[in-house]
Amino acid sequence: MNGDTHTHTIRVYYEDTDHGGVVYYANYLKFMERGRTEFLRSLGLELDAIDQQYGILFAVTEANIRYHRPARFNDLLQVESRITMLRGARIHFAQRVLRVADNTLLADAEIKLACTHRDGGVRRIPAPMMACLQSISEGR
Amino acid sequence: MNGDTHTHTIRVYYEDTDHGGVVYYANYLKFMERGRTEFLRSLGLELDAIDQQYGILFAVTEANIRYHRPARFNDLLQVESRITMLRGARIHFAQRVLRVADNTLLADAEIKLACTHRDGGVRRIPAPMMACLQSISEGR
Amino acid sequence: MNGDTHTHTIRVYYEDTDHGGVVYYANYLKFMERGRTEFLRSLGLELDAIDQQYGILFAVTEANIRYHRPARFNDLLQVESRITMLRGARIHFAQRVLRVADNTLLADAEIKLACTHRDGGVRRIPAPMMACLQSISEGR
Amino acid sequence: MNGDTHTHTIRVYYEDTDHGGVVYYANYLKFMERGRTEFLRSLGLELDAIDQQYGILFAVTEANIRYHRPARFNDLLQVESRITMLRGARIHFAQRVLRVADNTLLADAEIKLACTHRDGGVRRIPAPMMACLQSISEGR
Repeated sequence: MNGDTHTHTIRVYYEDTDHGGVVYYANYLKFMERGRTEFLRSLGLELDAIDQQYGILFAVTEANIRYHRPARFNDLLQVESRITMLRGARIHFAQRVLRVADNTLLADAEIKLACTHRDGGVRRIPAPMMACLQSISEGR
Repeated sequence: MNGDTHTHTIRVYYEDTDHGGVVYYANYLKFMERGRTEFLRSLGLELDAIDQQYGILFAVTEANIRYHRPARFNDLLQVESRITMLRGARIHFAQRVLRVADNTLLADAEIKLACTHRDGGVRRIPAPMMACLQSISEGR
Repeated sequence: MNGDTHTHTIRVYYEDTDHGGVVYYANYLKFMERGRTEFLRSLGLELDAIDQQYGILFAVTEANIRYHRPARFNDLLQVESRITMLRGARIHFAQRVLRVADNTLLADAEIKLACTHRDGGVRRIPAPMMACLQSISEGR
Repeated sequence: MNGDTHTHTIRVYYEDTDHGGVVYYANYLKFMERGRTEFLRSLGLELDAIDQQYGILFAVTEANIRYHRPARFNDLLQVESRITMLRGARIHFAQRVLRVADNTLLADAEIKLACTHRDGGVRRIPAPMMACLQSISEGR
């Protein structure tokens, strides 16, 4: 964690690439979810425990992603994650994927999530989790 | 093809779902790419032949996707694809994913692509391909 | 269905390929699962309905796969599925993936599954489903 | 590396799970490939550099995998990789996936690979790479 931005490192494997020789475009969304999960873990928030305790999941409601440069097999990537909005049932993240070797920006995205009950329907983020998230996103 | 909108049907398999019991959010981008590929095929444009002839690929430069309702295992989905912009090296698509059973809108997206040479660098869409694409997207 | 062998056709998309220019080796297991799911559907067995009615899933316990020739982007593939053993909680399949264009064998596998309750533990295949499966795999 | 066995740790993310609440069966092959790639990296062998220098890839020719217990979302897994055969163009690996929390064996596999030229055709493993691999698999 650097200020309010969490950083997670990812290696590109064969499974991530496509026939164009680069990382397949949908897989950046996988990388970004790994980044968000590790961000939450760094705050002590484990999504499996939260699911078991509250029966809630975080569903992506919107993803806006721009692809700047391609990642390639064996690249080491850095996923940066920062909360930009937090209210009621909603969390918005700004995320970036950079190539570690030369710090090039490969992709950036705005990802919007809603706290959702397993039985359907949006739910307010549980208070202890909200307090924890607010501590890192103060002033936003 | 219905007017300027192409339709492609997709079955949801186990591979597409996640632990939340629904289709994993990144997989809608896979479904949409299948829809675009079949759209082009319906116009006689085969991407492997185009790659071999011109050495070009279509790289996604931006994807803006909204998730409305979840798809589930064994659902039959309809992917609708329509060209909204076509100029030089660029093609923009508007795409929607619907559940066939009740015609519910599950996700919709704007996907922007650039014609790219395998050696790097943006290239104008080859003239014969452009003519073919224009025939279907007249007036846009 | 041709005798006791079910055939399902699959198109190779970008998502299926890797940086080596061919279909990623794990993805043949996806193709084979699609084939098994369509085999069961052709018998009137819908896995989501069976899950809802009995709370059971079919878990792969063993997969033995040989890769003969690579599939490539845009290839049309044929997945052949045949039941080779059926008893109690267990179903074994012999499956093959062929390239439609020249009928070349790309991969073949033996896949063993066990009927499993969602709460854990192996369960006998429900009698109506078993009767249905036996009708197609008579004499095996 | 512990004796001749390399260990690589993997976190299970949402992308890896399926609607059954467990890791999708094909994804263990992804985990095992990550394990093999990290094994080679630990010996100083980078597959992208080897591809660029020699034009070779390692293609899986056979995978025999047994699934013992399911991995679940957020589990930490350990992938163990060991070379069991090394000759000419061929490498065989024995691999296991364990859950770190309780050291339970989840899956084990025998994976056979062949050194293949990008232009097609099997090639002997380049001598410097072979020497490096032999140093770790002495006596086998």
